[in-house]
Amino acid sequence: MKEIRRILFFVLTTLILIGAAYAKFSRPDEAIAYRKSVMTIIGQHFKQMGLVVKGKTNYQEASFSADANVVKLLATLPWEAFLEPRSDKGKTNMSSSVFKKEAQFKEAAASFESATAQLAEAAQKGDLKAIKSKFGEVAQTCNSCHKKFQK
Amino acid sequence: MKEIRRILFFVLTTLILIGAAYAKFSRPDEAIAYRKSVMTIIGQHFKQMGLVVKGKTNYQEASFSADANVVKLLATLPWEAFLEPRSDKGKTNMSSSVFKKEAQFKEAAASFESATAQLAEAAQKGDLKAIKSKFGEVAQTCNSCHKKFQK
Repeated sequence: MKEIRRILFFVLTTLILIGAAYAKFSRPDEAIAYRKSVMTIIGQHFKQMGLVVKGKTNYQEASFSADANVVKLLATLPWEAFLEPRSDKGKTNMSSSVFKKEAQFKEAAASFESATAQLAEAAQKGDLKAIKSKFGEVAQTCNSCHKKFQK
Repeated sequence: MKEIRRILFFVLTTLILIGAAYAKFSRPDEAIAYRKSVMTIIGQHFKQMGLVVKGKTNYQEASFSADANVVKLLATLPWEAFLEPRSDKGKTNMSSSVFKKEAQFKEAAASFESATAQLAEAAQKGDLKAIKSKFGEVAQTCNSCHKKFQK
């Protein structure tokens, strides 16, 4: 039951965030700056986790979990910014395939969100073996989406 | 009791985040990019809330609360990035007064964190009168810190 409640809580809060927290932009360049900012922060915390996973820095449960939580929250934010009309022009690496294959893009986004939530859960439990596996899954969802939707 | 538990929870989670979620940087420009990104995201969601507070867009409880929560979380992240050595040089508006008056800077950061948490709480309750007042307090803490610590 506890597990089910936790999953339900996650699904509900995610749906609320998806429905509610999306930013609304007045110009394409505003959307570009926003999504780049989200990715910069995700990248920083992901890099820090990567150093632990690769054994280059010591594993500290609290700080790893905090990094994973930041990535989990940030992972819910940028998708509308990618779908902002005309935001494939200008200072961006985004391919216009995002607009042409919107359903696939949203699926890739959902995979990333799900993987980051699972990593945060493993980190919360302090289970280093699960963490390493889930970290790898997050990295795969990053790469797969970048491969499809970057210029 | 409920109120006390809520405050305790807030203080504890904030302390955990302060202690744990700070990013660690390998170069000053990495810290600059990180803190700029945090401020870009805060600015976007704060602007959206500002449109509601000024009566320019309709108040929707869920989306306002989501915006306030994003700002509350992001407000805990950037402070170590400002304190990164030599990050007052380069593409930044940060004044070196941050290093010279570190205690004052940290106090200003704590005021901002506290004000954003109070705004998120008012937003959670859906109390528009309190929201407007707390929004004003957040804006004041923004301006006061920028005045003291920007070039």
